[in-house]
Amino acid sequence: MHKSRLGVVVVDCREDDFDRDVAFWSAALGRPAKRSDDPSDQNYVDLESPQGEVKVLLQRVDHPSRAHLDIETDDLEAEVARLEKLGARRVAQIKRWWVMEAPSGHRFCVVRPQTEDFEDKAKVWP
Amino acid sequence: MHKSRLGVVVVDCREDDFDRDVAFWSAALGRPAKRSDDPSDQNYVDLESPQGEVKVLLQRVDHPSRAHLDIETDDLEAEVARLEKLGARRVAQIKRWWVMEAPSGHRFCVVRPQTEDFEDKAKVWP
Repeated sequence: MHKSRLGVVVVDCREDDFDRDVAFWSAALGRPAKRSDDPSDQNYVDLESPQGEVKVLLQRVDHPSRAHLDIETDDLEAEVARLEKLGARRVAQIKRWWVMEAPSGHRFCVVRPQTEDFEDKAKVWP
Repeated sequence: MHKSRLGVVVVDCREDDFDRDVAFWSAALGRPAKRSDDPSDQNYVDLESPQGEVKVLLQRVDHPSRAHLDIETDDLEAEVARLEKLGARRVAQIKRWWVMEAPSGHRFCVVRPQTEDFEDKAKVWP
């Protein structure tokens, strides 16, 4: 058995003016930006999530701006295999996550648990 | 005073094989699809949301597949004006919602309340 659920919405922002984009989305959604102290991590900014709500992550990217979903899971390999059986395909493994492509053409990621209530709220797959 | 928050993640699916895409996303996220009985409404399929979690809406579109955010609000005009001050621009008014474009280039929508806990959980803007 393993678990997964929709955990994060990632707002990919083309590397143009990331500070402007962080300021906009933080104010638009009313969620303070939490910048990392790690200098190797400056392409990602978390927006603080109200308890129980989906996490929003801003990412600086070198492709056109878009948004994608992250599915969080406690068993990366089992979840990727489950999604493959549903028709998705593996695109690339990056660090500790998988990029996949849905039959609809959407790219999405399968990641380790990102939210505090993952254990309680995630769907259990037999 | 008015309220708003991130209420819906819309998965826009290019009109290719919408039934396949609905089946995939429903199974991938573990959320049963709720099709509308209204024949004029067949381009939209809600996925059932666990209590308190962000709503996911699948939409059949005639542009390439993508995903976008819907900000739900109890005062459309006040919210659109607030977002304009933050740097977004109005793109088009469609039925009862506004399509806007963020400084980051993302299109998003400003819509009426879509979630059951909107009143309790939405951010209040002075």
